Amino acid sequence: MQRDKANLVDSVATESGGKMVLLVADGLGGLPHPETGLTELETARTPNLDALAVESACGLHVPIAPGITPGSGPAHMALFGYDPVRYEIGRGVLEALGIGFDLRPGDVAIRVNFATVDEEGRIVDRRAGRIPTEKCEELTARLDRIELPMSEVFVRPVREHRAVIVLRGAGLAGGLNDTDPQATGVPPLPIEITDGAQEKTAEVLNAFLRAATEILKDEPAANAITMRGIAALEPIPSVGERFKIRAAALAGYPMYRGVAGLVGMDVLQMVETADDVEEALRAAYRDYDFIFVHFKKTDSSGEDGSFEAKVAATEELDLTAERVRSVNPDVLLVTGDHSTPSSMAMHSWHPVPVLLRAARARVDDVTAFGESACLRGSLGTVRGVDLMPLMLAHAGRLAKFGA
Amino acid sequence: MQRDKANLVDSVATESGGKMVLLVADGLGGLPHPETGLTELETARTPNLDALAVESACGLHVPIAPGITPGSGPAHMALFGYDPVRYEIGRGVLEALGIGFDLRPGDVAIRVNFATVDEEGRIVDRRAGRIPTEKCEELTARLDRIELPMSEVFVRPVREHRAVIVLRGAGLAGGLNDTDPQATGVPPLPIEITDGAQEKTAEVLNAFLRAATEILKDEPAANAITMRGIAALEPIPSVGERFKIRAAALAGYPMYRGVAGLVGMDVLQMVETADDVEEALRAAYRDYDFIFVHFKKTDSSGEDGSFEAKVAATEELDLTAERVRSVNPDVLLVTGDHSTPSSMAMHSWHPVPVLLRAARARVDDVTAFGESACLRGSLGTVRGVDLMPLMLAHAGRLAKFGA
Repeated sequence: MQRDKANLVDSVATESGGKMVLLVADGLGGLPHPETGLTELETARTPNLDALAVESACGLHVPIAPGITPGSGPAHMALFGYDPVRYEIGRGVLEALGIGFDLRPGDVAIRVNFATVDEEGRIVDRRAGRIPTEKCEELTARLDRIELPMSEVFVRPVREHRAVIVLRGAGLAGGLNDTDPQATGVPPLPIEITDGAQEKTAEVLNAFLRAATEILKDEPAANAITMRGIAALEPIPSVGERFKIRAAALAGYPMYRGVAGLVGMDVLQMVETADDVEEALRAAYRDYDFIFVHFKKTDSSGEDGSFEAKVAATEELDLTAERVRSVNPDVLLVTGDHSTPSSMAMHSWHPVPVLLRAARARVDDVTAFGESACLRGSLGTVRGVDLMPLMLAHAGRLAKFGA
Repeated sequence: MQRDKANLVDSVATESGGKMVLLVADGLGGLPHPETGLTELETARTPNLDALAVESACGLHVPIAPGITPGSGPAHMALFGYDPVRYEIGRGVLEALGIGFDLRPGDVAIRVNFATVDEEGRIVDRRAGRIPTEKCEELTARLDRIELPMSEVFVRPVREHRAVIVLRGAGLAGGLNDTDPQATGVPPLPIEITDGAQEKTAEVLNAFLRAATEILKDEPAANAITMRGIAALEPIPSVGERFKIRAAALAGYPMYRGVAGLVGMDVLQMVETADDVEEALRAAYRDYDFIFVHFKKTDSSGEDGSFEAKVAATEELDLTAERVRSVNPDVLLVTGDHSTPSSMAMHSWHPVPVLLRAARARVDDVTAFGESACLRGSLGTVRGVDLMPLMLAHAGRLAKFGA
């Protein structure tokens, strides 16, 4: 292998070594409460995470780059050791992964809105009056029966007016324009290609649109569809190929299961409670070198904008972290994929605390797991994509570079 | 836009958001006084900067890369969000900007020395006995009257033996060799081209040299010229195109005004005093999204090698910072473009303190603005080029990357 910066880690990865567990608390990082100066994580009672911090190397990570707020897809790609800009996952692909659709390399996935158009075909409501999810399910089932000669077509509901189309077949491509004009009073945009490789995909989608228009023509609200984020699932080298590890994912939400599957992790049973996590982790620990455990509530409570709810979710995380610790992995790394400060009620760019517990970790004097305390940790502030190499190194899985 | 690391920030920049003020104290960083262990900034009485630090996220920035001492041009390019290696500004171009010459893309600018040569054309004095600036002005006025068929030629004085030539016309190029041999006893070097695209420029310069030799032949000291840093002004995408901001510059020195103009900032009236700065900033704040304010004395006092003078300049900066704060910008970032330790009496590579005050800043426990205190700040140590994305993020001007 010709060695360059992008594959330096891959080029020194070895087959043997210790076992690693990556516990990701989604949206973990936060911002200080104006009255106390303490973040959600610093406010929560987290005796188990603090005890882990005492015996760990601590630090922070910048998920993508300074100032860049990541979606969950790129943020997880970085944690899995993939440059999230080089391996950008298209929006249609993420939407399909988010409903648990079993995408294959080469598939083209598309986000769909049901919409309302008038007699001239001009959009009156870009969201078809937010039809109920049941209606969405009924309509997608009808559209799913469309058969086209050039490609398989799958149509699946997301919720309300949102759905997904997946095309499967040879010679398909992504990157075509959105047909949603992001405005009312105008018709959906025609599909245009910028590259000869998109020609077949455009034909398939135009044929699909004609058939869909016929099926939907008598619907009072959802009498049209618009398409966005037309994206092919590009082949991605697996963590097995790159890092010589057998990897598994324990997660409860389809999108995280989907992204883990994309990089070649075995996606195990759904986990929800701390009991689930411990039991599944003990079983998986026998068979896998690397296990990704996803904890969702720290993000959803932050997105809801409730400081108190995020504190409570963080205290729940603390119990899950203790269950994970009880398995005593050779390398345990606890972090978030990005920050979700409850004061912003959205993802943010702020660095995320990290703790890394391993026999060879340079244990520092950080005694609490929090944004401020981790600033003084021995890991310093690294990029999200640097954490996988650090886990592999601490597991004794990276050979010396050069002699 | 095909997204890559170089345009990641551009690709997520949005049209709307808060307003930003960047206060650059030139050469701000320093080194500890051997007796007190405190730098100039740590020695100065700076109650206003310290108060800002209390309510800010603090940190340090490495202007270009570890160990690299920047000139003011690249250091400011980095602060404006431009990779200073990718967008390197040629020396001739910087010299022309430094005298306030209104360069246009495609112009070729050249640093000129008046020199003394003997009857055989060998250089006797590379600086023509450091002729007085008035003499330089007289000679450049005569050389400026040279007319050439292939290009416009402008000749302008800098000071003493130094001048600038600017060529303007189609098909010109930079990158030709210096004619200054950096030695005496030898004649100036001939102009050589390494690329066919330089042919016309070489012809123009040779024709100019013949005409100049004729004009200068009876001068006792300045009877020849040498040329260095022959550089074209390459087109640079503006901050408006890249970051979707309307930007303005408040600066008193031509070079900073010139570099700001290069990246598409509106260069406003000259400012010198703290009063000037506040008044101009209040007016500009209505019309612009981003305002760059330049403070020079911290650098010039450091270059003079006086610890005390730099302390005094820093106390003056403190008053200017308070005037800037009084405008209460949504995002206020105070830093330097590089360090200029008075003990070195020159620019250096040492990291530079940063404070960032904004509603969404992760306020830390730094209570003084100084090199040591900022080491414990929540921004950590970043690159100079990372500061613009951080300002844009805190102003709410960067959309999420990926879903």
